[in-house]
Amino acid sequence: MNIASIIGLISGIVLMIFGIVFDMGTMSVSFGKIMNFIDIPSILITFGGSFTTLMTMEPSLKTYVEKLASFKLVLQTPAYNDVETIKNIIALSNVARKEGLLALEETANSIEDEFLKKGILLIVDGTDPELVRSILETELSCIEGRHSDTIGFWDKLSAMGPAWGMIGTLIGLVNMLKDLNDPSTIGPNMAVALVTTFYGSVLANWICIPVVNKLKARNAAEIMMKEVIVEGLLSIQAGENPRVIEEKLKSFLNPTNRAEFDVNEGGEVDG
Amino acid sequence: MNIASIIGLISGIVLMIFGIVFDMGTMSVSFGKIMNFIDIPSILITFGGSFTTLMTMEPSLKTYVEKLASFKLVLQTPAYNDVETIKNIIALSNVARKEGLLALEETANSIEDEFLKKGILLIVDGTDPELVRSILETELSCIEGRHSDTIGFWDKLSAMGPAWGMIGTLIGLVNMLKDLNDPSTIGPNMAVALVTTFYGSVLANWICIPVVNKLKARNAAEIMMKEVIVEGLLSIQAGENPRVIEEKLKSFLNPTNRAEFDVNEGGEVDG
Amino acid sequence: MNIASIIGLISGIVLMIFGIVFDMGTMSVSFGKIMNFIDIPSILITFGGSFTTLMTMEPSLKTYVEKLASFKLVLQTPAYNDVETIKNIIALSNVARKEGLLALEETANSIEDEFLKKGILLIVDGTDPELVRSILETELSCIEGRHSDTIGFWDKLSAMGPAWGMIGTLIGLVNMLKDLNDPSTIGPNMAVALVTTFYGSVLANWICIPVVNKLKARNAAEIMMKEVIVEGLLSIQAGENPRVIEEKLKSFLNPTNRAEFDVNEGGEVDG
Amino acid sequence: MNIASIIGLISGIVLMIFGIVFDMGTMSVSFGKIMNFIDIPSILITFGGSFTTLMTMEPSLKTYVEKLASFKLVLQTPAYNDVETIKNIIALSNVARKEGLLALEETANSIEDEFLKKGILLIVDGTDPELVRSILETELSCIEGRHSDTIGFWDKLSAMGPAWGMIGTLIGLVNMLKDLNDPSTIGPNMAVALVTTFYGSVLANWICIPVVNKLKARNAAEIMMKEVIVEGLLSIQAGENPRVIEEKLKSFLNPTNRAEFDVNEGGEVDG
Amino acid sequence: MNIASIIGLISGIVLMIFGIVFDMGTMSVSFGKIMNFIDIPSILITFGGSFTTLMTMEPSLKTYVEKLASFKLVLQTPAYNDVETIKNIIALSNVARKEGLLALEETANSIEDEFLKKGILLIVDGTDPELVRSILETELSCIEGRHSDTIGFWDKLSAMGPAWGMIGTLIGLVNMLKDLNDPSTIGPNMAVALVTTFYGSVLANWICIPVVNKLKARNAAEIMMKEVIVEGLLSIQAGENPRVIEEKLKSFLNPTNRAEFDVNEGGEVDG
Repeated sequence: MNIASIIGLISGIVLMIFGIVFDMGTMSVSFGKIMNFIDIPSILITFGGSFTTLMTMEPSLKTYVEKLASFKLVLQTPAYNDVETIKNIIALSNVARKEGLLALEETANSIEDEFLKKGILLIVDGTDPELVRSILETELSCIEGRHSDTIGFWDKLSAMGPAWGMIGTLIGLVNMLKDLNDPSTIGPNMAVALVTTFYGSVLANWICIPVVNKLKARNAAEIMMKEVIVEGLLSIQAGENPRVIEEKLKSFLNPTNRAEFDVNEGGEVDG
Repeated sequence: MNIASIIGLISGIVLMIFGIVFDMGTMSVSFGKIMNFIDIPSILITFGGSFTTLMTMEPSLKTYVEKLASFKLVLQTPAYNDVETIKNIIALSNVARKEGLLALEETANSIEDEFLKKGILLIVDGTDPELVRSILETELSCIEGRHSDTIGFWDKLSAMGPAWGMIGTLIGLVNMLKDLNDPSTIGPNMAVALVTTFYGSVLANWICIPVVNKLKARNAAEIMMKEVIVEGLLSIQAGENPRVIEEKLKSFLNPTNRAEFDVNEGGEVDG
Repeated sequence: MNIASIIGLISGIVLMIFGIVFDMGTMSVSFGKIMNFIDIPSILITFGGSFTTLMTMEPSLKTYVEKLASFKLVLQTPAYNDVETIKNIIALSNVARKEGLLALEETANSIEDEFLKKGILLIVDGTDPELVRSILETELSCIEGRHSDTIGFWDKLSAMGPAWGMIGTLIGLVNMLKDLNDPSTIGPNMAVALVTTFYGSVLANWICIPVVNKLKARNAAEIMMKEVIVEGLLSIQAGENPRVIEEKLKSFLNPTNRAEFDVNEGGEVDG
Repeated sequence: MNIASIIGLISGIVLMIFGIVFDMGTMSVSFGKIMNFIDIPSILITFGGSFTTLMTMEPSLKTYVEKLASFKLVLQTPAYNDVETIKNIIALSNVARKEGLLALEETANSIEDEFLKKGILLIVDGTDPELVRSILETELSCIEGRHSDTIGFWDKLSAMGPAWGMIGTLIGLVNMLKDLNDPSTIGPNMAVALVTTFYGSVLANWICIPVVNKLKARNAAEIMMKEVIVEGLLSIQAGENPRVIEEKLKSFLNPTNRAEFDVNEGGEVDG
Repeated sequence: MNIASIIGLISGIVLMIFGIVFDMGTMSVSFGKIMNFIDIPSILITFGGSFTTLMTMEPSLKTYVEKLASFKLVLQTPAYNDVETIKNIIALSNVARKEGLLALEETANSIEDEFLKKGILLIVDGTDPELVRSILETELSCIEGRHSDTIGFWDKLSAMGPAWGMIGTLIGLVNMLKDLNDPSTIGPNMAVALVTTFYGSVLANWICIPVVNKLKARNAAEIMMKEVIVEGLLSIQAGENPRVIEEKLKSFLNPTNRAEFDVNEGGEVDG
């Protein structure tokens, strides 16, 4: 579970509810006011309109559901770990140095990262280095393409929320203005009209934009990790010295992780 | 037919109509309210203004009609298929390996994809590899240019809708404000003025933006498929091993398609 | 004359006038309402402000007038023709093949396109191929730079229109709000204030944005044509086979033009 | 003095004042209305807030003042001249051809352009051509970096104007709404609140955006001129024929300047 | 301490307070009006909502706190100094020339800049020049990546401020419109609703946007300095003449710093 994201999402809704129910003039709380913000047709227009418009953009219902499901990634902590991955690669380079490239096959079986595994198997198969690079980089850019499709989904949803919120508000205003017979209904009707704009803003700013940015950060971290893997595997294949490989890969780490790396290093890694 | 897009478009209009006719206070439905949103001059200003402005930007009426007609692509499922195309190329590479490049001519006749066919014929003609790449890539970038022209059409329309909607609203407001003699007409007149803004938002968010994004996704998929073809053809011409070609092209597939590819593979492809 | 652009521009103004004079409630037309939209100080602030601000950005009054004059390009049909140009280049390649590069000099005199002519003369002069490419590409990128200057002019004007429209509206509102003694003047005064916003929107959306996009499309077509010329001239200089040159240049055409090209080809072009 | 920019700036303020003081209904002019637009706290919030925010972004007060001072560039006509510079370079190439590279030293002393002078001295010193290019291009990109810093200053100011204008309007509205006891003050108070929005728009659209665009155009012209110099100096160092150099550099000129160049050329330049 | 930034930040708040408390009509100051702008639920919704949304985007609470803490960089003057750094490198190149690369080790210990130190040690270790460049450039691009993460934090906060300000205003308006029984409360309630929009604008324009731009400028300066170091170290490793290195590195300086550099140079630097 990703603590920061969960706290962030929960605090947002708590603050909104507090803002709705608390009256500073009288210092009183009135939970009934929450009802001012619940209106079925408004929900249908704003959320319904936003989500169905996104459906129109998709190649199939299946991809649509998959992209919606990507929301859960926001709540998860990524499984990969920079320091761990680099250590693995250095360990692999030591194995390759001492026992030859073929010895990597066995090690590969215990590796969970599909991308790293595939790369090792390509090397073990004696694939031409240029082809290894080309295959891994094509795969990398296709992974990135799929990630940016998913990010784009939430990005477009963040634009659709306010847009359909405004459509809902216009529907409410036109209906209200056409029939002004009873002045006492103007205020409440206008409130209802504005609720769709509120929904649209909340959908965009409480959900979609944080999701977009969280997924972007995850993607950047994952792609960098995979670039480290490509760099490392090609160095292993080229038979470079494990010390040199370590130096190369460590430059990808930030200072904190590098310190962590250096601390644990001791006798673990050796050439 | 593309189910997701059709459901998306229909749901959008259904939700809007529901929002218009349903009154939550009285829990009643009044279809007469739909008339509040139908106003001939407003339709002419918003839709007319948007579409004729797009006409001004076009080199000829013919290209204008062609771009409008691209709407139907949104409702269609693309004919091409990643897995199928890659299998075809691998089959071609096997033919070329066993029977020589000239044997591809016959196979080419049964291929529907014009781009793949053209590429094969260039190879069969013994065209220089550099020239093959140059011709296919020029063609690719011209195809992409035409697609992005069409996408740009809907994108500009999505900006023109709200713009002419606002022009219509300003016309309505100015006319209304100039003549405020009968206060009872202020509400309805203002409602009519806002209807153009409503039209503009609907044109943009219900139609144009989904079309833009759907066409972008189709274009990306088609261009990637054509890049796979170029890569594959050049590998065949270079006489690469079908196994290597397969490995190369498979890195373009997403995991689902790759699994599908591997399942069906069996004895079909072999070097 | 460019039919699409002229129809587009005229329809836009006709639709606006219709929207102004037609009253759907009474199904009547009142041309007097056009006067609601004519206000001299508003015209001066919005159009005057927009155009003089653009003047501030220019290096000299001369370039300012030239850029304004580029408006007429929108109404013209471009003189160049893809198919014709490619045929000309292939004809040139045939001449060069049969009679040598020097024979091109005579042909060059009958060519109207200055860019193509210059290229031929460079070749005839025996200029080094690298230098020919460098000179033609520098010229190409300078042409593109000048075009994008002109496009930028209309683009900035499309932003200045609404900006000065808003300045005008603020002036109107402030003056009105400072003196609210006679309530009957509030409506008409507010109408006048809004007229500048209307002017700004019309300037941007009816004129500037279409001009920007039309000029962009013209520029793209012209630059592509000139790239075809550079490609073709360098192939001629390199003594490539006219058939190969034809194949190369045809990949720049869209399917319709390519069909047209192939139909007329017959015995006209031959190596 | 740059006529276009000065006319543009003056016309803008004249048109605004006209719009403020002229009343079309009564065809009268009332200069007193200018007072409606002068409000000290509003000036302090909008202009003060915008300018001090820009100060926050600067590394030091010195750079802040320098960037403000760049405003005067808008009113000046640039000192450099395309045709002149190219003629100078061709003249230099003739000197170098006839009397050797060392003869350029003397000529360099009479040249005002620091960049051209530095380049000549590098050549005279016998610096390696690769190093000459690297030094001049680093300098070029640093010059461009400094220019774009200055352009960015005015660009950010053009965003800060309307932002602080809106902050001022919100302050005015909140203060007004909190105390609605005397209805006769609502109008004037709201007018004052709107004045800050007016100031912000004027700062952005009358001053900042024109300055940004003017400086951008100046920068583009200067950089292109310096690129011509680099190209020319390297050609001189490589001992290229002055005729070839002329042909190369002339492709940077627009048609008007090229015609001017060709007219004056006569016996001045010779190989 | 960075004077410009501190003056900028303080002036901004002073000007806002002045705008709030000063009444131009009566030329009086009323500090009580500051209370109009303090509302606990509004503070919670706008600031709380903005900051917790940013938390949702972060990988962990730790990175969140680190990014918030980057605010203090705005108030600091950067420790690095262009002229000093270049002088250090030239001094190093002299040492290397006279005493050999190994002699740099001792000098390295007295250098504070971690990046320069690491580079020197790589050289002293006899690392392959290509690898030195690759390691230093990977590190450079990772530093830049971390900086742009931090800049992005403040950039997203600058968008979240106004967004949550608007959500707060919508909450206030809906609650107010639902209950219009007492007309005398409309004004004050609306004022409270607008206060969140005010908070959002102030957060964005007084704090976040200046921080973004200040950090961007710091980053640009630091990256350029590090590029100078990479360039210089590789030149030292290649055994280039200190004079040439000086010439190369000086092109990175702006004219003021270059003058300063030349003045102090005297006998300090020599080859």
